[in-house]
Amino acid sequence: MTALDPTAGPPAAAQPAAAPPAVAPSPAAQAAAGAALRVRRLGIDTRQEAVVYLHRECPVCRSEGFEAQSRVHVRLDGASVTATLNVVTGDLVAPGEAGLSEVAWRRLGAEEGAQVVLSHPPPVGSLAHLRKKMAGGRLGPRAMEQVIGDVVRGLWSDMHLSAFVAACAGGGLDFDEVVSLSEAMVGVGERLSWGRPLVVDKHCVGGLLGNRTTPIVVAVAAAHGLTIPKTSSRAITSPAGTADVMETLAPVHLDLARIRQVVEREGGCVVWGGSVQLSPADDVLIRIERALDVDAPGQLVASVLSKKVAAGSTHVLIDIPQGPKAKVRDLEEAERLGRLFQGVGRMVGVHVDAVVTDGSAPVGRGFGPALEARDVVAVLMNEPDAPQDLRDRSLFLAGRVLELDPAVPRGEGLARARELLRDGRAWRKLQAICEAQGGLRAPPVAPLQHTVEAGHTGRVAELDNRMLGRVAKLAGAPTSPSAGLELHVRRGDVVGPGQPLFTVHAESKGELAYALEFAAAQADLVRLEERA
Amino acid sequence: MTALDPTAGPPAAAQPAAAPPAVAPSPAAQAAAGAALRVRRLGIDTRQEAVVYLHRECPVCRSEGFEAQSRVHVRLDGASVTATLNVVTGDLVAPGEAGLSEVAWRRLGAEEGAQVVLSHPPPVGSLAHLRKKMAGGRLGPRAMEQVIGDVVRGLWSDMHLSAFVAACAGGGLDFDEVVSLSEAMVGVGERLSWGRPLVVDKHCVGGLLGNRTTPIVVAVAAAHGLTIPKTSSRAITSPAGTADVMETLAPVHLDLARIRQVVEREGGCVVWGGSVQLSPADDVLIRIERALDVDAPGQLVASVLSKKVAAGSTHVLIDIPQGPKAKVRDLEEAERLGRLFQGVGRMVGVHVDAVVTDGSAPVGRGFGPALEARDVVAVLMNEPDAPQDLRDRSLFLAGRVLELDPAVPRGEGLARARELLRDGRAWRKLQAICEAQGGLRAPPVAPLQHTVEAGHTGRVAELDNRMLGRVAKLAGAPTSPSAGLELHVRRGDVVGPGQPLFTVHAESKGELAYALEFAAAQADLVRLEERA
Repeated sequence: MTALDPTAGPPAAAQPAAAPPAVAPSPAAQAAAGAALRVRRLGIDTRQEAVVYLHRECPVCRSEGFEAQSRVHVRLDGASVTATLNVVTGDLVAPGEAGLSEVAWRRLGAEEGAQVVLSHPPPVGSLAHLRKKMAGGRLGPRAMEQVIGDVVRGLWSDMHLSAFVAACAGGGLDFDEVVSLSEAMVGVGERLSWGRPLVVDKHCVGGLLGNRTTPIVVAVAAAHGLTIPKTSSRAITSPAGTADVMETLAPVHLDLARIRQVVEREGGCVVWGGSVQLSPADDVLIRIERALDVDAPGQLVASVLSKKVAAGSTHVLIDIPQGPKAKVRDLEEAERLGRLFQGVGRMVGVHVDAVVTDGSAPVGRGFGPALEARDVVAVLMNEPDAPQDLRDRSLFLAGRVLELDPAVPRGEGLARARELLRDGRAWRKLQAICEAQGGLRAPPVAPLQHTVEAGHTGRVAELDNRMLGRVAKLAGAPTSPSAGLELHVRRGDVVGPGQPLFTVHAESKGELAYALEFAAAQADLVRLEERA
Repeated sequence: MTALDPTAGPPAAAQPAAAPPAVAPSPAAQAAAGAALRVRRLGIDTRQEAVVYLHRECPVCRSEGFEAQSRVHVRLDGASVTATLNVVTGDLVAPGEAGLSEVAWRRLGAEEGAQVVLSHPPPVGSLAHLRKKMAGGRLGPRAMEQVIGDVVRGLWSDMHLSAFVAACAGGGLDFDEVVSLSEAMVGVGERLSWGRPLVVDKHCVGGLLGNRTTPIVVAVAAAHGLTIPKTSSRAITSPAGTADVMETLAPVHLDLARIRQVVEREGGCVVWGGSVQLSPADDVLIRIERALDVDAPGQLVASVLSKKVAAGSTHVLIDIPQGPKAKVRDLEEAERLGRLFQGVGRMVGVHVDAVVTDGSAPVGRGFGPALEARDVVAVLMNEPDAPQDLRDRSLFLAGRVLELDPAVPRGEGLARARELLRDGRAWRKLQAICEAQGGLRAPPVAPLQHTVEAGHTGRVAELDNRMLGRVAKLAGAPTSPSAGLELHVRRGDVVGPGQPLFTVHAESKGELAYALEFAAAQADLVRLEERA
């Protein structure tokens, strides 16, 4: 190289050894590959999207042309992540530092003071499929595999994921694509096999407050002799998820080997699905769908069935609650969804039975982990005042699950389920499952309880599901397992002044006050209609 | 209220005055409305998406059920923003503090130590339209207005925006929706009017490296007597935007009143569009489209025409470069896009002329603000070695712009443009415009320059546009205005050993070294084919 321009003179940069770069702090040799920065753990939870925080004056920002929201490749020894850049002014990070969000820190296996090298990320091939899908194209099985593979590797930003979910919603996925998506999601996770011809499962597509049928259905099915390895979720927006409820009765955080032992011994289990990575892609997509408040049929079916295939299920009962305020509003839509489940199930090798159930009102009496567990146990113990609606729903579903067994004739499942419940075998089975999972325990009772009474005579005209759930959460559910709300009335009951409407359960005075204060401000939490 | 449960005793919380809440630190009365936290400016640039950082132990997080990525309503006196929550562990923020990203800080008009109140955000009605669009529905003018209104108010998260862009891409917008979207975007910004029957503009849909025709076209059009108030952008991913180039010749950061003065006096201007908020919605959507690398025809047309309508233009020339590596790949696609521009233009009241031009190679000689300005001036000054391609493209476009004037017969614009260029009136007009904008200045010359020569004899077979642009950026463009890359060869040239290929211009030794090091590592930056 020679400087030909007379105004320049021989540039110092032409002899890099003699004059080290004045601006770029790293050796010039690192220029193409990126430059090293000291990592700092900022403790910021950005969910699955890795974020790196660089100072505006960071030389790497400038030399690489990075700007806020650029995608940046971060390497630490053998590990690497593709992260979204947040540019920082002030003293949060120094110009020579790279702040990392929690997921970036974890994926890199970083330690304080380690050096990372930043560079432009390698091209992400699967984003071409995203663009094709946005343009209205169809994705074949191979493209779907690449998409899901890169999603799980964290190469897509939340904005990419969001665009993908939107492009796939609303009939954006045809039948073959739902099958490909399901299979691609199975392909990136763990996959269990049980060495048995019949492994059953049940799944409810839409959350109904208090609808805690799972432990009862598992108990009945396992008591009958079926294999039913059930993985459940924790609460997301409700005061309790099935895993939270079950945890007040037994440990639910089991690894795969332990789950296998429990199921070998008792035929069933009810564990937290988060402890086994059955469908890591689904964990990502569900978070996006929740943020967008969208749950398109194709994605719902792929999400559920991919988890069932991964869990080694051969037969699945899908519960589709339908009602004016449920996820599925009308009957025709519910039946169409059921048929899609069955069709895709056939292609991915799972037999699906789908039932449409009443989704118009909350189920049971308690809302919160221990309170729901009490309802479950009351049903299983045949207590005379056990909530009838929970009992009826559970028996109906359990009957349909039993009919997945070729030995149980169609139409006889319900009677068989009723028998297993009535004679105590279902309750003994749940106790045995709890023991196998690490020990049966009594659901805790809240130290603080306060009952709200009716101020006047009236008929219970309306129970506000959403607000009742919110009171339970303000009282501490599900973090405080004994907290929640216990309902003493059903819609249509007639109450007089001083008669109890509901009891708030809490573990601390502050939370009790907080929940009661909020409840008092909600006029229609329990709406009493005065009679003429 | 009375506690009826015998296990509980009268709860202290029933007398809140006697026993203040132990967990929730704020008065219980604030429970329903949210709780107050001290703000802290974290200096994190999250672009247009407001982010609030709360400690995991923050009582508001717990009581309101906020979790990472929840949408949170933040109020400070009269102002409020809807922000995305990032949950923090460690000491970045204390449990009683709310950290704010830059945009949240700005929108709230916050000051250090101020108190904000957090609560669940009010429902965002326009998100129902997003869900409808995702489900494949059509949005009418009123729905489109609500969407764009809420987007501009910052009520949508980046994930919502991304889903909207994806749902509208790929034929997701029909003709009427493109019109509604354009009009909605005009409705939320400033709108200029010039009180003249003919106000012209030109716009190029896809960035070609070095394609700096705008100052020349404006000079010719204004010299002819047309009104052409041109707002331009700064570089986004390229080494220079038109505003960066123009800024090396004159100030470009003018407010509306100043722009008006310049245009009244000289008929035209070339200013930075970012200093006037003509289409704030477009600023948001373009950022998302860039992140997704998608630029669907409907959105492109709405984006461009909404800005032209807001700028008060009556006639617009659209330049659609078409080539294998350009944004628009084939001729049919280019012509379809041109027709869409014209059809939507008719509906929103702008006459559109669209031309398809050659987009197969970079234009001009210099890449970087001052280097491109030198090319522009060389063409305007009729220098014999001015880049011929830039001159030809500029004259062709200027001719078409002149033909927007009813006084110029179809087919005679080019000759008229050539005349205005040849006799120096165009150059005098650009000088006058620069003076009116605040003073003509000479583009700076880089203090450091280094020329790279051919190592052997060969024919220039390929110039890697993208990598040439990257070298210019590593050399400091556009932040350092004199920095960039100057090309000495064209495709097809035959060179011998020692003959100059390109010169890197820089303002600091580090950047020069950095750019040269990177250039040396790119085998095909200028690919020489040896002859057999």
